[in-house]
Amino acid sequence: MVIVMAADATPSDIQAIVSLVESTGGEAFVSRGVSRVIIGLVGDIDRFDTLNLRGMRGVGNVTRISVKYKLVSREHHPDRSVVQVGGVPIGPGTVTLIAGPCAVETPQQTLQAAEMAKAAGATLLRGGAYKPRTSPYAFQGLGEAGLRILADVREQTGLPVVTEVVDAHDVDLVASYADMLQVGTRNAQNFALLQAVGAAGKPVMLKRGMNATIEEWLMAAEYIAQRGNLDIVLCERGIRTFETATRNTLDISAVPVAQRLSHLPVIVDPSHSGGRRDLVLPLSRAAIVAGADGVIIDVHPQPEIALCDGPQALVAEDLQELAHAIERLARFMDRRLPAQRELLAG
Amino acid sequence: MVIVMAADATPSDIQAIVSLVESTGGEAFVSRGVSRVIIGLVGDIDRFDTLNLRGMRGVGNVTRISVKYKLVSREHHPDRSVVQVGGVPIGPGTVTLIAGPCAVETPQQTLQAAEMAKAAGATLLRGGAYKPRTSPYAFQGLGEAGLRILADVREQTGLPVVTEVVDAHDVDLVASYADMLQVGTRNAQNFALLQAVGAAGKPVMLKRGMNATIEEWLMAAEYIAQRGNLDIVLCERGIRTFETATRNTLDISAVPVAQRLSHLPVIVDPSHSGGRRDLVLPLSRAAIVAGADGVIIDVHPQPEIALCDGPQALVAEDLQELAHAIERLARFMDRRLPAQRELLAG
Amino acid sequence: MVIVMAADATPSDIQAIVSLVESTGGEAFVSRGVSRVIIGLVGDIDRFDTLNLRGMRGVGNVTRISVKYKLVSREHHPDRSVVQVGGVPIGPGTVTLIAGPCAVETPQQTLQAAEMAKAAGATLLRGGAYKPRTSPYAFQGLGEAGLRILADVREQTGLPVVTEVVDAHDVDLVASYADMLQVGTRNAQNFALLQAVGAAGKPVMLKRGMNATIEEWLMAAEYIAQRGNLDIVLCERGIRTFETATRNTLDISAVPVAQRLSHLPVIVDPSHSGGRRDLVLPLSRAAIVAGADGVIIDVHPQPEIALCDGPQALVAEDLQELAHAIERLARFMDRRLPAQRELLAG
Amino acid sequence: MVIVMAADATPSDIQAIVSLVESTGGEAFVSRGVSRVIIGLVGDIDRFDTLNLRGMRGVGNVTRISVKYKLVSREHHPDRSVVQVGGVPIGPGTVTLIAGPCAVETPQQTLQAAEMAKAAGATLLRGGAYKPRTSPYAFQGLGEAGLRILADVREQTGLPVVTEVVDAHDVDLVASYADMLQVGTRNAQNFALLQAVGAAGKPVMLKRGMNATIEEWLMAAEYIAQRGNLDIVLCERGIRTFETATRNTLDISAVPVAQRLSHLPVIVDPSHSGGRRDLVLPLSRAAIVAGADGVIIDVHPQPEIALCDGPQALVAEDLQELAHAIERLARFMDRRLPAQRELLAG
Repeated sequence: MVIVMAADATPSDIQAIVSLVESTGGEAFVSRGVSRVIIGLVGDIDRFDTLNLRGMRGVGNVTRISVKYKLVSREHHPDRSVVQVGGVPIGPGTVTLIAGPCAVETPQQTLQAAEMAKAAGATLLRGGAYKPRTSPYAFQGLGEAGLRILADVREQTGLPVVTEVVDAHDVDLVASYADMLQVGTRNAQNFALLQAVGAAGKPVMLKRGMNATIEEWLMAAEYIAQRGNLDIVLCERGIRTFETATRNTLDISAVPVAQRLSHLPVIVDPSHSGGRRDLVLPLSRAAIVAGADGVIIDVHPQPEIALCDGPQALVAEDLQELAHAIERLARFMDRRLPAQRELLAG
Repeated sequence: MVIVMAADATPSDIQAIVSLVESTGGEAFVSRGVSRVIIGLVGDIDRFDTLNLRGMRGVGNVTRISVKYKLVSREHHPDRSVVQVGGVPIGPGTVTLIAGPCAVETPQQTLQAAEMAKAAGATLLRGGAYKPRTSPYAFQGLGEAGLRILADVREQTGLPVVTEVVDAHDVDLVASYADMLQVGTRNAQNFALLQAVGAAGKPVMLKRGMNATIEEWLMAAEYIAQRGNLDIVLCERGIRTFETATRNTLDISAVPVAQRLSHLPVIVDPSHSGGRRDLVLPLSRAAIVAGADGVIIDVHPQPEIALCDGPQALVAEDLQELAHAIERLARFMDRRLPAQRELLAG
Repeated sequence: MVIVMAADATPSDIQAIVSLVESTGGEAFVSRGVSRVIIGLVGDIDRFDTLNLRGMRGVGNVTRISVKYKLVSREHHPDRSVVQVGGVPIGPGTVTLIAGPCAVETPQQTLQAAEMAKAAGATLLRGGAYKPRTSPYAFQGLGEAGLRILADVREQTGLPVVTEVVDAHDVDLVASYADMLQVGTRNAQNFALLQAVGAAGKPVMLKRGMNATIEEWLMAAEYIAQRGNLDIVLCERGIRTFETATRNTLDISAVPVAQRLSHLPVIVDPSHSGGRRDLVLPLSRAAIVAGADGVIIDVHPQPEIALCDGPQALVAEDLQELAHAIERLARFMDRRLPAQRELLAG
Repeated sequence: MVIVMAADATPSDIQAIVSLVESTGGEAFVSRGVSRVIIGLVGDIDRFDTLNLRGMRGVGNVTRISVKYKLVSREHHPDRSVVQVGGVPIGPGTVTLIAGPCAVETPQQTLQAAEMAKAAGATLLRGGAYKPRTSPYAFQGLGEAGLRILADVREQTGLPVVTEVVDAHDVDLVASYADMLQVGTRNAQNFALLQAVGAAGKPVMLKRGMNATIEEWLMAAEYIAQRGNLDIVLCERGIRTFETATRNTLDISAVPVAQRLSHLPVIVDPSHSGGRRDLVLPLSRAAIVAGADGVIIDVHPQPEIALCDGPQALVAEDLQELAHAIERLARFMDRRLPAQRELLAG
């Protein structure tokens, strides 16, 4: 931590800081320039953070040098991690295709979507039983009935299931059905939920908050990691900007930036970031060659009657084209698609 | 709801929409222009919203005309509401000063802050026992011990208590201590929490999400209202923009805009929006004359050792100056400050 | 300037920086902490800025401490400035009301608008002869014919004229008619134009770029000041954010923030920031008590047929109400409205 | 154009609109629903736009259906265009690599950078002689001396030259040296400049304003096209958002979105959007497979002493790796790199 004193800081202002830092067991190095004094702090940075140094007399500027997330940082964990979800790897070496309906509506619709996904080479099934919706009048999901449908479809197709949990209260229930818990963009700073999924013993897919900086996203992951769970996959899904042509703005740079800062796998959701079917294919291609460890795609057998986000859902032929592109681009990136597991029922 | 068909829409595309709308009990009025066809829909708008009309062949554009929130809308409730909190009104006619520490740290610090607030004319005490913090390593609040401190300080000062709840699970506990429940900016789309506070039987202060449009903020309020609780106070606290000179950008226009759209009271948090002590006074003045029904202010007896947001906390003399300005500007706006209640202990 | 070296910086990396800084006549102070080295630079900061220190081996982070604008900074010019426009002061002590039509359309419309402005107490007339329009098919202004109309109306009403210039080429022409040159939001980083108005010998109103940080706005002002012109008035007119309920988001905090950083007067344009007539009055009130040195308001005798921005123009009765509020709030702020000058023609 | 009347609009409000529209030669179709009336307008849309319909009594909402740009729209020009620059094509079928120094500093630095570019397969040379810089104290470019250097280097390498013009005044001078004129992000709404380059008889590269929506970007292109010049290449270079990890946020979706709306070629500038050398390669790859018609890259023989944007410049080996990736991904997209022209001097 570095403190730049104001031009009019007095010697006693400086001494006050040195004393305060030393009283907490830290060391303070004072450098005097022509017009300013700079104080470097060494010791327990999180302790320093609680001192409110910015509020002290004579302080101009305080810069924290070390990262605010440790467990998910690459600093002490240089190798990028692989997260296993029901036997399917996500991480360096592979490009994982996750596909399924935005919302679980009926057993038949879910099974059809899963079969579309599987036929195209997907190795994980997505599908929402609990849907956080901006409008209280929109379809909110089937709840536990939806979880049961997902479990049945997993049985029939062999695809492990990724599904969202929106309330800390429901984490154990959802975890009892799901292979991976998803935390959505609206809950990216719901810290009670982050802590609960951290303790649930299942891998977690953490979507970036639509207004979260990359640093805040990693701090959200740190909340999960602190509970002992490092099986976290980060998912870039677009941020909120002034542009209205797309639902959100896919921050493609976030993929290499987050991978450089954190050892966690990073995947991309091109369906929700663009919000338009015609963008899913180009954005998925871009994601793979930007280095994403996978993509998560909305599919629906009949998008025109979907209860949620129909305008962005792919149909079967789109998905085949997408899967074909992903396979070729994965090879270009020296990666491979994970193999589909044997049917559980088989 | 109005559908503008694409230039190349066919008669059968149009017929398909008319049939679909009629099959749900609605009416569709077709207007033919020279180059485009327009279809107006009349009936149950929320039902139409589920139809995924945008995904149908030949559809160019779908515009929803009616608002997406009903209970909090001013459309059918033209008079602006007054919300009572422990006998203190918030709404047209008054300007309510809410003050207190960002976080409850100790009984003494909380009592001192409350006495500062009371001496300056505040009629409600704010203070956080549960703190949602971006960093998992930051002080997270005292929890129930903090709630007990708040209750004791209420006993000693007579000031009703506003305090944040961050987890749906804790709503009943917090409601058993608090006079008003606060939902913070990071939970503005935590729908489980919104529903829980809606059912808790206490007034709610709903902070605007830092990335929420005004419309989304009102839909969040609608989640609370749907559970039967219309004692909601909206709190503008700054939105996230590209500007870094302030912590967030106070959207002062949101006060008159939200008051025009909704009957709910709207207050302003100048402490968290600016994040700087020197901005609290000018932003508070601006809030009052923009029409705000109150302001909520961070105070601390010793900001330099505050465990949370010290740089923005006012000290006693600042608060006196603020209170004096508010009183004069309230008169300018033909409003008054509510009277402080008699000491409960008295 | 402070350089924080990366954790893996080598002694020769550090030496390379010290040598480079010293070779340019600067001094480098090296502080060694436990895990990092910090180097403080003293000397010609702008020279250091050209060194590309961030690009050198072993550099983690470079922080510039001193401001990037000198002439407009308050650091060496602590007293806030007053800018005189045709005898009308803008600055501390006064609240200046500038009003007039967004665009000059006809002599009659301009005169009527000016008379409305004058009757309400305005002391400066605004009006655009050159209009920068997002659409090439929108009305682009009358050009020099518009300038002549403005000069005639000044003759008839005695109100000095503020008008926009959009091309460096036209600066001398516009300056020959105008009392104050306006640089619009879309030209806030048109450096050729900034330099030209800096050399034109007339006061300048510099609108904030709708995507400019406050620091960038002050650097734009520095471009003008560098040419010897310090008669600059800053005008906050809203920034671009995700919110769509208003045309732009008025950044009310920018008023006190810019006044603290710069000695230049700061006014507010509530008409263009909100883009809605119903917001002009509350935003103007907010501007005054946030400390603005004036407001600039669109008025039109018949907004419904205005060629530009009709939806935000005030009519006569609105303007009277506004002027009355400004007068009372100016008194609250210990300021006064400047007196209207005698009619030039009188 | 569609007008949705307010719920309380009267028959005379409706009649007033119909009369106004008919008086301008248009037609108005009135549709009555249960709670609202909708009026569809047919005729000269730009004429309607001047009518200020939003300002009329009883009007709730006005939606413009047709695009605000005609000449650059794909609506009447479905085939995507190819723009020729000194014999080098930019458009569908090819992926064009443009490279060179951000700023022209010396003849030697420019020649070395051009040779690096050429060796890697670039077919156009970029380089700035006029640099728009946020700080007035930053290097502003060599001006005409820089143009002469560029012309000499073109002579030596055979690479046609793309260079920025920042002042309408300089357009003829710059056009006498350049093969393509660049309009930078800060001038994206400098309409005088747009019109001047539109009349200069040279192809234009139009960078997206960092705060411009895609629609506004296309309207800026329309300004150029209106002067008879359709040889326009759009360049996405990142938009301003709240994220600070990158200089700007590359809006990768803008590539397919702009290509769907406009027939003009769209290229990407990964150097300026990310502002970091380590992002140039992944963002370039993403650009190609998102469908970009080319990329424009900063290179420098010695980035650590660059006078402008050194942190993002590639060195020779980076550029080779980039060129190799582009070639392979171009093939994946069924495109090819244009051949380098014979040396002009040869």
